[in-house]
Amino acid sequence: MTQTETNSGHHPKERALLCELLRQFYDLGWCTGTGGGLSLAVPGGFLMAPSGVAKERVTEADLFLLDEAFRVIAAPTKGELCLSECAPLFQAIFGLGEVGAVIHSHSIPLALATRAAGSEQTTLGWQRLEMLKGIRGVSYPERHFVPLIDNTPREAMLLSALQRALENLPPHAHAVFVRDHGAYIWGRDAMEAKRHAEVYDWLCEFDHRERLERNSGNAGAGEGS
Amino acid sequence: MTQTETNSGHHPKERALLCELLRQFYDLGWCTGTGGGLSLAVPGGFLMAPSGVAKERVTEADLFLLDEAFRVIAAPTKGELCLSECAPLFQAIFGLGEVGAVIHSHSIPLALATRAAGSEQTTLGWQRLEMLKGIRGVSYPERHFVPLIDNTPREAMLLSALQRALENLPPHAHAVFVRDHGAYIWGRDAMEAKRHAEVYDWLCEFDHRERLERNSGNAGAGEGS
Amino acid sequence: MTQTETNSGHHPKERALLCELLRQFYDLGWCTGTGGGLSLAVPGGFLMAPSGVAKERVTEADLFLLDEAFRVIAAPTKGELCLSECAPLFQAIFGLGEVGAVIHSHSIPLALATRAAGSEQTTLGWQRLEMLKGIRGVSYPERHFVPLIDNTPREAMLLSALQRALENLPPHAHAVFVRDHGAYIWGRDAMEAKRHAEVYDWLCEFDHRERLERNSGNAGAGEGS
Amino acid sequence: MTQTETNSGHHPKERALLCELLRQFYDLGWCTGTGGGLSLAVPGGFLMAPSGVAKERVTEADLFLLDEAFRVIAAPTKGELCLSECAPLFQAIFGLGEVGAVIHSHSIPLALATRAAGSEQTTLGWQRLEMLKGIRGVSYPERHFVPLIDNTPREAMLLSALQRALENLPPHAHAVFVRDHGAYIWGRDAMEAKRHAEVYDWLCEFDHRERLERNSGNAGAGEGS
Repeated sequence: MTQTETNSGHHPKERALLCELLRQFYDLGWCTGTGGGLSLAVPGGFLMAPSGVAKERVTEADLFLLDEAFRVIAAPTKGELCLSECAPLFQAIFGLGEVGAVIHSHSIPLALATRAAGSEQTTLGWQRLEMLKGIRGVSYPERHFVPLIDNTPREAMLLSALQRALENLPPHAHAVFVRDHGAYIWGRDAMEAKRHAEVYDWLCEFDHRERLERNSGNAGAGEGS
Repeated sequence: MTQTETNSGHHPKERALLCELLRQFYDLGWCTGTGGGLSLAVPGGFLMAPSGVAKERVTEADLFLLDEAFRVIAAPTKGELCLSECAPLFQAIFGLGEVGAVIHSHSIPLALATRAAGSEQTTLGWQRLEMLKGIRGVSYPERHFVPLIDNTPREAMLLSALQRALENLPPHAHAVFVRDHGAYIWGRDAMEAKRHAEVYDWLCEFDHRERLERNSGNAGAGEGS
Repeated sequence: MTQTETNSGHHPKERALLCELLRQFYDLGWCTGTGGGLSLAVPGGFLMAPSGVAKERVTEADLFLLDEAFRVIAAPTKGELCLSECAPLFQAIFGLGEVGAVIHSHSIPLALATRAAGSEQTTLGWQRLEMLKGIRGVSYPERHFVPLIDNTPREAMLLSALQRALENLPPHAHAVFVRDHGAYIWGRDAMEAKRHAEVYDWLCEFDHRERLERNSGNAGAGEGS
Repeated sequence: MTQTETNSGHHPKERALLCELLRQFYDLGWCTGTGGGLSLAVPGGFLMAPSGVAKERVTEADLFLLDEAFRVIAAPTKGELCLSECAPLFQAIFGLGEVGAVIHSHSIPLALATRAAGSEQTTLGWQRLEMLKGIRGVSYPERHFVPLIDNTPREAMLLSALQRALENLPPHAHAVFVRDHGAYIWGRDAMEAKRHAEVYDWLCEFDHRERLERNSGNAGAGEGS
């Protein structure tokens, strides 16, 4: 049994879902320019999208199958495809436990949030927005924090800062934001990770647009009574 | 006859329309992060989307069928699906009479409008925009008001404020906005509710962008003569 | 031979194109909330979309077929559909000669342009943008003007102002903008009208975003040397 | 053997890819209003989209096949289609060597970047954004420059300025920006050119939105600790 014969034979449903979600994430602006990525836990290991390719065009046969120690069990049939440098980062996040899917997003609203934050800031936070209820465990009135770490020249170098952030996660945080870069976002399964990524994206886009409004002394805009 | 056998057998056309509209609303940004929702009146009751699931992936068998008192007649075949906490809110709106569809939207422009309003404001209003004619009964020159209520930690707690707003609805209002949250929007049938939701979304997006312009002393921008 | 039997029998290719373009225009944000519209010249008359319906759902059988004097020859099979109040406006524009298609757009960038203009302004203008070359007859360096007229409570009341604007059209103008409303845009055929509408939309969106930048003293943004 | 018989017979896979990419680029806003374009190197020559037509509707038979000296070998079957004035510009870029695809983009973020730059500026630059790693050879910390040249009344007149820019390309630059216009962007193959175009688009959109934020004294926005 060779890798090329068997690669797309394992976990066909999860492979199809992963590719479908990559197309959706591309349309949402999360993995333009081949950036971003997605990994799903499967029985006995993980599926992971290849690096440096157009994410909306990834097919089932293009995925890496990794074992529980993140060693490649089956590589894509196209030999030139590479495992992302993100792999150890994804592995660290799966190590939190109860994580079934990790999304790496390069969306513009996430990146803007990391830069609107002061250069000394080590968390991002939101409060009093109904959308916060889309994050598992978070309620509308309470303040929700996620870690913000500095970017590094190579993604593999992010590992130690990411590990420290994961060891000191604020309650209910399901993301680590990376300055000038984007975020890693996770959930118990693919649908929860996607929901969390949609919520963090909504929060960052909302904040950006609200920051722009502050400038305009808009009290009374759209006022009715 | 059991629920699971019969759930998707009733009202197949309305179920298909509801799912199709959810996909469209997801693409419009109204129900990202599993937020938002839709309920349609059917003969003898109501169809309602489940809570907490990716709205663009809801299928005909995932819907709740409720009787006229909003009691579940047929639950989704997937047993883990839950009726939304919004159900009593939708019920209150259907109680207005001549309401065939209710949309719950979490769109960013709607949420921005609720926050651009002063914290004491209890209505939102628009005037002199052609799009206002898309709201039943509203003309271009007159001022159109909708209620704005405060958000609550749980959606079910919104009920009393929503009921008061519905009892004192301004003429032709087809929406109640909720601060930090979004809006409930309705119409005589699915297409009218969708039209109203598109119009309120257009008005809020237009207002947001116009508020940003105010800041720039733009008299003369694009000026020709 | 009755209308209902024959309505969708005439001009099947043009009917299909008109419906396809309405779906595209909906996706572009030009006819949200059932606003906007499209009319195509056909041999011996005109095809026109009905009023007040979701434009992305209009089918071939929903169109009005009008003769050269804009009298209805064949109405939609669904008896409840109405001819738009815009019909006389479209007729006036077709009367310019060499007009094969008229688009009525409610896009937000067009509406913003009409409001960014001073209240006394009677034209909008652009200059030194490559996209201007997408308007028939317009070059990059020269200034391009289009008329801007005031909105009226009912669309039919726009007719006299529109007629005056059409009688005094600036060179190469292929649009009349209406304050608080949107624009009527035309071309020699459907593809040219669409091209013109895309160009005017690009120009208005670009202008809006550039006006917002003016505020930020951005000299040097993205500067390299 | 006549042109019309054989035009779509050559390079069917590359023709299909070119048309598919044009549709995608249209959806991304890069070739609205018939602007923009795409050319792919094929064995013995080049395929090029026609000028002045709706790019999302171009079919395999609408493409020009050019030889290595950019002379037309096979014209589209529709005789009215024209080769773009861009052809000599594309030819100059292919002349750099190791270029397999050239994209001409009219996207609004690119055009805004050319105007946010001071009128004396001859380059655009970015630094410390993870997305920069999507440009071949560029790292996160270093500053990346691309040339910025002035627009001309006709595209063919851009040639001498473009040639000078290509002779003095900054390291790793894969684009030449044109003031008031857009950019020419390339890569070793279609997928790399697309990746580069997506990255430059992301950078310009990010910069625009960050410039708008600067105005609002936003330190602390989204702040957590």
